[in-house]
Amino acid sequence: MSFQPILINGTWQQAQSPVGFFSAFNPSIKTPLADRYPISSFSDIELALAATHQAVLELNSITADIIANFLDTFANNIESCKEALVDMASLETALPKEPRLRSVELPRTTNQMRQAAAAVRERSWCHATIDTKTNIRSKYCHLNGPVVVLGPNNFPFAFNSIAGGDFAAAIAAGNPVIAKANPGHPGTTKIFAEAALKAVQTSGLPQAMVQLFYHLKPEDGLKLVAHPQIGATAFTGSRAAGLMIKEAADKAGKPIYLEMSSVNPVFIFPGALDERIDNIANELFNSCTLGTGQFCTKPGLVILMQDESSEAFLKAVSKYFKSAPTGFLLSKHVLHEIISSIKVMQQHGADIVTGGKEVRTPGYKFANTLLRVSGDVFLEHPKALQTEAFGPASLFVFARDAAQIKKIVTHLEGNLTGSIYSHSQGQDEPLYKEIEPLLRQKVGRLLNDKMPTGVAVSPAMNHGGPYPATTHPGFTAVGIPASILRFAALNCYDNVRQHRLPVDLQDKNPTGQMWRFIDGEWTQKDIVSY
Amino acid sequence: MSFQPILINGTWQQAQSPVGFFSAFNPSIKTPLADRYPISSFSDIELALAATHQAVLELNSITADIIANFLDTFANNIESCKEALVDMASLETALPKEPRLRSVELPRTTNQMRQAAAAVRERSWCHATIDTKTNIRSKYCHLNGPVVVLGPNNFPFAFNSIAGGDFAAAIAAGNPVIAKANPGHPGTTKIFAEAALKAVQTSGLPQAMVQLFYHLKPEDGLKLVAHPQIGATAFTGSRAAGLMIKEAADKAGKPIYLEMSSVNPVFIFPGALDERIDNIANELFNSCTLGTGQFCTKPGLVILMQDESSEAFLKAVSKYFKSAPTGFLLSKHVLHEIISSIKVMQQHGADIVTGGKEVRTPGYKFANTLLRVSGDVFLEHPKALQTEAFGPASLFVFARDAAQIKKIVTHLEGNLTGSIYSHSQGQDEPLYKEIEPLLRQKVGRLLNDKMPTGVAVSPAMNHGGPYPATTHPGFTAVGIPASILRFAALNCYDNVRQHRLPVDLQDKNPTGQMWRFIDGEWTQKDIVSY
Repeated sequence: MSFQPILINGTWQQAQSPVGFFSAFNPSIKTPLADRYPISSFSDIELALAATHQAVLELNSITADIIANFLDTFANNIESCKEALVDMASLETALPKEPRLRSVELPRTTNQMRQAAAAVRERSWCHATIDTKTNIRSKYCHLNGPVVVLGPNNFPFAFNSIAGGDFAAAIAAGNPVIAKANPGHPGTTKIFAEAALKAVQTSGLPQAMVQLFYHLKPEDGLKLVAHPQIGATAFTGSRAAGLMIKEAADKAGKPIYLEMSSVNPVFIFPGALDERIDNIANELFNSCTLGTGQFCTKPGLVILMQDESSEAFLKAVSKYFKSAPTGFLLSKHVLHEIISSIKVMQQHGADIVTGGKEVRTPGYKFANTLLRVSGDVFLEHPKALQTEAFGPASLFVFARDAAQIKKIVTHLEGNLTGSIYSHSQGQDEPLYKEIEPLLRQKVGRLLNDKMPTGVAVSPAMNHGGPYPATTHPGFTAVGIPASILRFAALNCYDNVRQHRLPVDLQDKNPTGQMWRFIDGEWTQKDIVSY
Repeated sequence: MSFQPILINGTWQQAQSPVGFFSAFNPSIKTPLADRYPISSFSDIELALAATHQAVLELNSITADIIANFLDTFANNIESCKEALVDMASLETALPKEPRLRSVELPRTTNQMRQAAAAVRERSWCHATIDTKTNIRSKYCHLNGPVVVLGPNNFPFAFNSIAGGDFAAAIAAGNPVIAKANPGHPGTTKIFAEAALKAVQTSGLPQAMVQLFYHLKPEDGLKLVAHPQIGATAFTGSRAAGLMIKEAADKAGKPIYLEMSSVNPVFIFPGALDERIDNIANELFNSCTLGTGQFCTKPGLVILMQDESSEAFLKAVSKYFKSAPTGFLLSKHVLHEIISSIKVMQQHGADIVTGGKEVRTPGYKFANTLLRVSGDVFLEHPKALQTEAFGPASLFVFARDAAQIKKIVTHLEGNLTGSIYSHSQGQDEPLYKEIEPLLRQKVGRLLNDKMPTGVAVSPAMNHGGPYPATTHPGFTAVGIPASILRFAALNCYDNVRQHRLPVDLQDKNPTGQMWRFIDGEWTQKDIVSY
């Protein structure tokens, strides 16, 4: 039986004694696709690890420009096979080709890759720090082993394990990547890997810089993230899977970055409803149903003050939810998960306002769903009522008064985002002052008058947040250059001779443009009188 | 029975139902000191946690200047009680008053506290990042709970849990600290806490900003680092204890920074010996025996090429070791540990060159000790022969050739430091080029022609390194401002109204001096045309 080949050390090859195989699935017609992909045994992983061992050493003589050229070339190659990617991803995920795949997610993917290329070329990301008095110099540098990237199901391009943000950041820091495809879109991932391999060869990077396999037994996944030879792991996905691999990596002392579940609370204050109830209803609807609600930043919890306006607001949102078409879910698993999450919320006192059921069609669908609960009931079961319902669903919480809103905030788990909508002329200011300091502690990104979906690839972005949204509140998965730092070690050079220093730390500024922190000042100058 | 009081929420009070008590011990005469300290039950911790909960909220209205004033005032207060500190620390640790305690470690402690104060006042540490096009802004900010600091036995001042580097960094980031004294020097720690409390009151920080207890049952320690209310933990100490609390913190998703064992390999290349054999012998001797070898950066492993020069070098070092007086060890535990470590090395083929035994005196002493082993034997038992012998001991490894040195490097564990001594005119350059890339991956700080002890408090310092030296290769425990980032969350503000932003992120530069990363440039300017 032959399978799609895996990519090891620059060569597409058959998996060695695979433990099984799988096919991708077309979620819009519930039908498996033709290609079969191997579930690798650990011997494939060992081959990949052996290859990266050599690559890590070679990287010491690879310049920043070569890495930057790779990223740019890869971005170009992606554009050259854009239609193949869009076709395959659309088959494997049922996400719409337009605008989502072709005009939104693909440009986002190449854009962040080019931003990473620019950051590598520009070099400031590495925080070169020089103390001329003591002749101690340091900078962030690649890790002592490859980065394992485990991508999620919901962004076949922008978070793809071999083309997305984690990949670009890990490569930018100078690390080889061992990518495990998300089994939801192996064909898409393979096309990316082909484009990446071409770019590796064009740019002259070590062959093992980019390697791909498709699937692993769970126990082999745990073995991989804990392997002595790896540098770090990046994971985006469910909390259950994330916490399992976190435990394995932690025990082995291996850095791991996980982006897990988040309900992204949105607070809508009375003044905002007085002022622009319809606009906000429309924004909320769009944000909840974008990508069929399968976004990590989807607003899953809406907190309002119980009054006539907020009831009218729920009605308005509900009207949008009812009248909109339901989109496809990514898989049977996603369907089962949302059914189960909604049930958990109902069992803990939430009532269905609209939707709440599977929609029986040729594909996987769940009705656009709104639930409601009182603040009192929410506070009885704060944990269960923060169950993430991944898909087009949101829970409205109606609080009795400002004091209860405050109490609700203190019961929130760590989240990626938290939004506050308030009156534009300041009438909600007292409430904002009470709520914001509490909410600030619970979220990575705090928004005003804006829904959390649409994570800009900005240097100031934080796509991260307190546990259990992620596992470290100081790192972001999106945003160049900050996201690169996750995959870097701080390398210090103490009294090291000038010619032996990495160019970034030598007296002469290597580009004339690089920002370095020299004797307490950020500067682009050379050190002249040391 | 009454004990020394603990410090909770600004008040010195008796521990609630302590589970036991302990006394400090004078290691120079093996005699307990008079004062008795409580081993707290968890109810003390709960009081402290409850107090910080309020303090964290109050901190939102505390300015950077207040925190900076606290650190400066505390440094002044420490100087005011310098003699009491020196007397007490000398009793509790047997470290010499001069130069060590009074003229080296105390000034280092106040110096790093003032550096932290300056960094807080100057504000650049928080990496304020502004993207004016998207109006997304971010900065590092305090965590959502207090930092627990667990200090080591070997630096009663500079790494003291209520006055040392971790303390200063945690406070600088804006976090309250819950300090657990090292049971080796509770009296010293109490004097610091008194000075800290005075500074808290003078500067107007919340009372719970600095709290102290002395000891805990191990299981309560695990409970503390995993407590939902804490922000993070900093630990410096043994690997065994460190890995236990790491596991507890990891499971709870709480950031923890551990600085554990390190053997700090020193490579002495043939050309260096040809050129300056005596100087290097003297440097090595000093570095190994400073503080009776009880430094985390003590060179515990010396790697040389087997030849006549390296044998002569061992002889020269050995002469220094033999003729020097032996210093006191910090405790009976330290004595037992070094005896056991030396035994492990001997059992795995290392031979004693000099020392190797307890010195029977009124105090705890272990002879200045050198061991030797061939590269062949080292490679048979690389793990056992990297056992840290905390105290005045070092293992010489004689390698057969350059290839064997390379092999030895690949078997090194993660270390804080690695040093290479080489010929000043370049005759060791080929060997350096082979060894450095391998060694670079294994250490946080790479030195040339310099011993690793004496960790400068420099912005470019990395006192950290790959696991198991620490648990994350991207963070340093020493060096302002970088060490502050361990205790900070990345807070992003997306579309947040100008007047609601923290001052550091408002258009106007809050000091006119603060460095901010605005639209890809580090600048001290205001944003004028946004």
